[in-house]
Amino acid sequence: MSGLKEHILAAVAPDLAAIETALHDNLGAHLKIVDQTASHILFAGGKRLRPLLMLLSARICGYRGDDDVVLSTVFEYLHAATLLHDDLVDGAHLRRNKPVAHSVYGNSIAVLVGDFLLARSLSIATRPGKLTIMAVIAGITEAMSQGEIHQLMKKGDLLLSEAEYLEVIRRKTAVLIQGACRVGALLADATEKTVDALDRYGHHLGIAFQMADDLLDYTAETAELGKEVGADIREGKLTLPLIHALEKAGPEQRVRMEGILRDNAFSNADFQELVGLLDALGGIAHTRRQAERNVASARSALAGFDPSPTRETLLAIAEYALQRKV
Amino acid sequence: MSGLKEHILAAVAPDLAAIETALHDNLGAHLKIVDQTASHILFAGGKRLRPLLMLLSARICGYRGDDDVVLSTVFEYLHAATLLHDDLVDGAHLRRNKPVAHSVYGNSIAVLVGDFLLARSLSIATRPGKLTIMAVIAGITEAMSQGEIHQLMKKGDLLLSEAEYLEVIRRKTAVLIQGACRVGALLADATEKTVDALDRYGHHLGIAFQMADDLLDYTAETAELGKEVGADIREGKLTLPLIHALEKAGPEQRVRMEGILRDNAFSNADFQELVGLLDALGGIAHTRRQAERNVASARSALAGFDPSPTRETLLAIAEYALQRKV
Repeated sequence: MSGLKEHILAAVAPDLAAIETALHDNLGAHLKIVDQTASHILFAGGKRLRPLLMLLSARICGYRGDDDVVLSTVFEYLHAATLLHDDLVDGAHLRRNKPVAHSVYGNSIAVLVGDFLLARSLSIATRPGKLTIMAVIAGITEAMSQGEIHQLMKKGDLLLSEAEYLEVIRRKTAVLIQGACRVGALLADATEKTVDALDRYGHHLGIAFQMADDLLDYTAETAELGKEVGADIREGKLTLPLIHALEKAGPEQRVRMEGILRDNAFSNADFQELVGLLDALGGIAHTRRQAERNVASARSALAGFDPSPTRETLLAIAEYALQRKV
Repeated sequence: MSGLKEHILAAVAPDLAAIETALHDNLGAHLKIVDQTASHILFAGGKRLRPLLMLLSARICGYRGDDDVVLSTVFEYLHAATLLHDDLVDGAHLRRNKPVAHSVYGNSIAVLVGDFLLARSLSIATRPGKLTIMAVIAGITEAMSQGEIHQLMKKGDLLLSEAEYLEVIRRKTAVLIQGACRVGALLADATEKTVDALDRYGHHLGIAFQMADDLLDYTAETAELGKEVGADIREGKLTLPLIHALEKAGPEQRVRMEGILRDNAFSNADFQELVGLLDALGGIAHTRRQAERNVASARSALAGFDPSPTRETLLAIAEYALQRKV
């Protein structure tokens, strides 16, 4: 498994280095506190998945210009902006083993620096001079904010359906990854058919990544996850493993699960019992299967591209979505 | 004085009606809570100054197309987005005689609906298909967020200089009004010289409006202001009347003023004493003079335009900046 990760990292090492430099060079904060707060979240060991996908999508469409690396920062800045606001809204404590920005710098700074990063993204997005790209990026920010609000409104709702869950993760996660792929193709002036293929790849990859993330919240260890295990249900977020298990549960099991979920101070033993029930009721297996299906759809969206190292890397990234530990 | 206001309102009544309808029709919220929260701030008796300035700027440059009204909503949505976040950051209680959105709907919703309104603005801004317009609007959002952070960092700093105050109000207020005027001219494909003239008009008008606002915080009554008088200093915001008075104060006066400012629970009598000192030390008169100078500069920026009803209205709006009560 770790072989796959190393394989991807070796293939994209120069890209990741270029992205890292561009993230430093294009932040454009006039005030030290903006730079510090933005850096707290930006340079904390993120995978750079979103900018990387934009670069690879442009490359697989034959892009040879100079705008790709700078434009790719948009997707990391936007991601960081939403993390700043979401951690605040969720009352989160840890991210990547570090205290979250709002507990270090205060809620007000977290709100305003999130706004700055969002604005900065949109400013950078104007640079290649393509309205199609601007429109995609503006649309992404709109969908993401509504996805977050939808999730917030459904907090603690034990009747959330699988369809609603899919709509929430599409908006809050998949839309950005999908947008990164779409923008890469648009930058390269790809045909509509090719733009749509990369869009589809990004959509399914994004759904698979979020499902894998939701699984990790039940199955990982805190140290490797970099935040508290079980954070989702402590925050009242129902994700697919639980939604499926609740659907399949008998009356007694449902009562027991709801008891644990409604108890704000459930113990570790309670949490382990819940994970046991999710597993027994097929919630873990169902989620893994749905993630696998999305990985397969992401991979098949690339069927029309000629074999190339870039195509191999995109296929490997889709595979990695299922295998990652963090 | 009220004659001027009525004169302006009569001249722009059809425009204000069109803006009001467009603000309802273009919000595009999928979720009821987004619509409610956004409406709480959007439809609470705002003057619609920013969209109106965009319409008039386009018209004075001869614009005859259909994109102006919809595009003008960008400037009210952006304004509402920043008010939502700023009221939260400032811990404000009242706005236009109503409880602020975050105390009605909660902090999380205020953050996320602010994000939505910002994103929505940028989405609408792509519609006329002009990159120059997109770039101006993205730049505005960037400058505004940095202006707010600058103000937050300077909270309670009794050594804030007039130059720094000007930089803060330029970013947090003038940039949006200036941008509305600039975008109107750009929509009309005006010459660079004309675009710059309207930009200059908007800049000086924005500075004058903010100075008048800062004066009202010391001189108005709570009922007419729609929020607590003295809110600025309660929130630790030093504005020009106070900055100037502190510069001119003798040692004893300064000690007394600092005593009131550092006392979080100062009485109404303390506040009235402070206002008396500001007045005696010339802080009120100096601010009014600076506002007047900016109004004069705004008016003279329109010197190159032929006489027309639109030019008259823009001149009257600049005049009104100094006379308004709320």
